[in-house]
Amino acid sequence: MTIDDALEIIERGTEEILVKDELVDKLKLDRPLRIKAGFDPTAPDLHLGHTVLINKLRSFQDLGHEILFLIGDFTGRIGDPTGKNITRQPLTSEQVLENARTYQHQIFKILDTTRTQVVFNSTWLDKFSAKDLVSLAAKQTVARMLERDDFSKRYKEGLPIAIHEFLYPLLQGYDSVELKADIELGGTDQKFNLLMGRELQKIYGQSPQTVITLPLLEGLDGYKKMSKSLDNYIGITEAADNMFGKIMSISDVLMWRYYELLSFLPLAQVKDLKRKVHEGMNPRDVKIQLAKEIITRFHSAKEAEDAQIKFMQQFSQGLIPEDIPHYPIETEQAEISLVHALKECGLTKSTSEAMRMIKQGAVKIEGERISSLDSQLNTGKTYVVQVGKRRFAKIEVTVIKPT
Amino acid sequence: MTIDDALEIIERGTEEILVKDELVDKLKLDRPLRIKAGFDPTAPDLHLGHTVLINKLRSFQDLGHEILFLIGDFTGRIGDPTGKNITRQPLTSEQVLENARTYQHQIFKILDTTRTQVVFNSTWLDKFSAKDLVSLAAKQTVARMLERDDFSKRYKEGLPIAIHEFLYPLLQGYDSVELKADIELGGTDQKFNLLMGRELQKIYGQSPQTVITLPLLEGLDGYKKMSKSLDNYIGITEAADNMFGKIMSISDVLMWRYYELLSFLPLAQVKDLKRKVHEGMNPRDVKIQLAKEIITRFHSAKEAEDAQIKFMQQFSQGLIPEDIPHYPIETEQAEISLVHALKECGLTKSTSEAMRMIKQGAVKIEGERISSLDSQLNTGKTYVVQVGKRRFAKIEVTVIKPT
Repeated sequence: MTIDDALEIIERGTEEILVKDELVDKLKLDRPLRIKAGFDPTAPDLHLGHTVLINKLRSFQDLGHEILFLIGDFTGRIGDPTGKNITRQPLTSEQVLENARTYQHQIFKILDTTRTQVVFNSTWLDKFSAKDLVSLAAKQTVARMLERDDFSKRYKEGLPIAIHEFLYPLLQGYDSVELKADIELGGTDQKFNLLMGRELQKIYGQSPQTVITLPLLEGLDGYKKMSKSLDNYIGITEAADNMFGKIMSISDVLMWRYYELLSFLPLAQVKDLKRKVHEGMNPRDVKIQLAKEIITRFHSAKEAEDAQIKFMQQFSQGLIPEDIPHYPIETEQAEISLVHALKECGLTKSTSEAMRMIKQGAVKIEGERISSLDSQLNTGKTYVVQVGKRRFAKIEVTVIKPT
Repeated sequence: MTIDDALEIIERGTEEILVKDELVDKLKLDRPLRIKAGFDPTAPDLHLGHTVLINKLRSFQDLGHEILFLIGDFTGRIGDPTGKNITRQPLTSEQVLENARTYQHQIFKILDTTRTQVVFNSTWLDKFSAKDLVSLAAKQTVARMLERDDFSKRYKEGLPIAIHEFLYPLLQGYDSVELKADIELGGTDQKFNLLMGRELQKIYGQSPQTVITLPLLEGLDGYKKMSKSLDNYIGITEAADNMFGKIMSISDVLMWRYYELLSFLPLAQVKDLKRKVHEGMNPRDVKIQLAKEIITRFHSAKEAEDAQIKFMQQFSQGLIPEDIPHYPIETEQAEISLVHALKECGLTKSTSEAMRMIKQGAVKIEGERISSLDSQLNTGKTYVVQVGKRRFAKIEVTVIKPT
């Protein structure tokens, strides 16, 4: 494989590479590169959004490099020392190890164990004295730290920044020194911290790591960041049928985005698929191929096959129509009553018809029969709502600010 | 002694007491208060300016309280971790102990050993882990730290502030927590750091220390801060004769200032002396009394007596006239040639006379014969210059900015 081929694989879907020329030089070295990526030690329950980065790590492994999967347990074990965030309790060593096991169980569905070192920064930072930390803190300035977007914003707005928050990027950067990382990967929101590693390595006389940032994956809605709290995610431990259904529900535009970031199909073949769709191929079939690739990764080829068959049967039996009309509903509240939503999107002609249908047990949300007239739909979510046998709608409730 | 009497002694010469009501409450407690004062571990060579604070500590001892003489060796042993200040090398433990011995030798000329604990903050800070320091740093905000005058000035002017500089006030404040200080004394320039101790004690659930700041003592020139680099100081290990001469050379205004800050003469008696001078007493005799008190403190009553006799003899023999005329000379340069200075203040009629007198060996500075025509007088200093037997002048060279 040529350097250019390797670069194409590395660059796929990335947001930024700092500095690309250095990366090229490193790829020419005759040794496996040390690729660092840091992870929170808090209870991990990965979704596809997280796997964008892990997939990239896997690509590096396929190119012969070594992954340093860093669990940042030193800070996790401190918790929130301001005492303001009661949900951020200090983790015990046992909890960290338990979480690490959960991580490994999940990431090794993607990563190659033989080219992965799982490391904990407490290994070196627990030995750090206050004196060591003072010396580390002397290596950067307050002004440099206030360049970080969120710090500068909070400082300007008069919101508090506790001083230890300046120490965390330094410690995270020091991890790169300790690990002698050649490359560090992270989300775009981590760019400042990744650059800190680069700067500290220079100060400590090391060759500075190349920083590669990856975008935050859009959720099923296609525009908000995938997250559990927005309920627009696919968890990697979700059942195969769920995964299949969710992937089939995404827009065609989002499908190509997922191909870029979640699929290992070579770019040439993705291009080929795009051409075919352009020439008339049903995008549904391209979506099925994506769904099967992802389910195979997290479950098995067999389960992917089964999920497809089940999904197709539902279609053929008319259980779920292929194209459900999409109704956005705007509200100023945190939620909207189901009765009003049914009328508003035209699934029923009036609120009284809506109430009658609910009483008759003829209204379902996500296949679940609804019995309460007081049922509410939450903003920020999309619901597949069914009235009777044939009336379907995908109701998306969004919040608008009162004018 | 009443609380009011104690207060009068404590308040004498202080700049600020925060908070006075709390101080009164503490004075009512039936136990010795814990009075903290922090000192640099770098080579100490104390002058009278330093003793303003030590005198106040002594007054507290006389009131029955306990002095915690804190040597801040933790930071001294770190040195300058930015590596920019090559003169601030890390001190070894041996150097710290050696300096501490020098300190004690000097301070115990003023302080009562039985009510003084000499403590080193390395005792607890060496045991501090990076984790402890992170937790400490979480207790204060960046904005609070940038309120400190010098930080805010540097930040506004774009001058670098290294992050560890934010940690030092925290560590210094934590010393108060560790020592359970009731009161901390310091120079006015230390006010921010003293208040940090107060704030941290509150956070750690302690009753906050009262902060007492003391002014910076004016040097012999009467308006600049006493310091070695300005050469306007009296070192506490200086010979008795030197001390006597220097104290006799100060202005009457400065004499009263020194009475306030350097003398233990009760205020009522100082007031009495002022009245007498107002009624015609020669201020020289009041100055002699001050000189003798100070020399007795650092040497002995016998040496003070001898110094006085020697000084008086010089007068009677006309070796040094009692009133030397004072000539301020302004220059835009760092120094001015002696030849020009002699002409300018009228000690010689011309520069050529000045050169002739120097060649003849008839010019003395501070009693030392001058032989070089290139001799320079430095700005910021005052020189007693003698030409021939009878011509004297006190030449003060000050710098003016070019317009």
